[in-house]
Amino acid sequence: MRKIVLGVGISLDGYIARPDGSVDFLFMPKDYSMAAFFKRIDTAVMGRKTYEMGLKLGGGNVSTPGIKSYVFSRMQEAGKRDELTFVNEPPKRFVEGLRKKEGKDIWLMGGGELTREFLRDDLVDELYLGVVPVLIGEGIPAFPSAFPERKFVLVENNSYSKGLIALRYERRKGQKKQNA
Amino acid sequence: MRKIVLGVGISLDGYIARPDGSVDFLFMPKDYSMAAFFKRIDTAVMGRKTYEMGLKLGGGNVSTPGIKSYVFSRMQEAGKRDELTFVNEPPKRFVEGLRKKEGKDIWLMGGGELTREFLRDDLVDELYLGVVPVLIGEGIPAFPSAFPERKFVLVENNSYSKGLIALRYERRKGQKKQNA
Repeated sequence: MRKIVLGVGISLDGYIARPDGSVDFLFMPKDYSMAAFFKRIDTAVMGRKTYEMGLKLGGGNVSTPGIKSYVFSRMQEAGKRDELTFVNEPPKRFVEGLRKKEGKDIWLMGGGELTREFLRDDLVDELYLGVVPVLIGEGIPAFPSAFPERKFVLVENNSYSKGLIALRYERRKGQKKQNA
Repeated sequence: MRKIVLGVGISLDGYIARPDGSVDFLFMPKDYSMAAFFKRIDTAVMGRKTYEMGLKLGGGNVSTPGIKSYVFSRMQEAGKRDELTFVNEPPKRFVEGLRKKEGKDIWLMGGGELTREFLRDDLVDELYLGVVPVLIGEGIPAFPSAFPERKFVLVENNSYSKGLIALRYERRKGQKKQNA
């Protein structure tokens, strides 16, 4: 089944962006590659605020070539415009629909509030995190409270130059409570 | 010089405890040891709330044998009681005093608000983090906003059983801005 992968770069204190949406603290070291990630993804979903910040910061271009992009918005009319499809269904119903279609995995691009909704509905199958070695002190959290506890299994942990660490976690539902 | 080490176990979403102070989500895998950490520490500092939660959860015992413990509190009278010393100086002045004395490194035990004060005053020399593979959804943040940006250098990243990762970062002051 197609997986939902929350893939974000974060500060060590868990922010995906500064309060104004800028991500200047993130970096991509030369020895790190997102190629494996993009190979398994053909669809991206994002929240309206992430879309708007993308517009502002990306000079009007939010979509990624070769990736079908959906924007969740209760304010924009649903439908396809400018390489993007606007959605105003609840995430759960929309994702159930997406999963019935043939395709590769689905990238949840973050944007705090949409992530919270996905986590509330337990729709996140995998976390793909790049953690940079800086505390930025305030910003847009990757995992905004509140949602029920979700346990994961660590499947990858690698260090790259300039102190980036790349972590991959898989959601294991119905696991027995871990005691150690 | 004696270093201040923020040493905490955290959830993947950056909480040191649940909203009620409980830390049942943390665990210590058999292949992981805190011995190296405790070997370099002879002093611990904590905030009043951490102290009170420790009292509640630890059955009245907060101090660690062999470690001189200080509690920052504006509400408690300063002085030594019950194996602990209460302090109502500002952290910066107190730490400057501690650093002038002979001794090993100093453990900042966390407790969100005290950590914020230490980070504001740029008193944290090292981060020693154990990250467990669970999103708890709400709680007491390890790094509560707001404080100025603080850059670190990754010096250790190891994975242990049950998905614990242990990270060590050193503060490097006056670094040039990293671009990659």
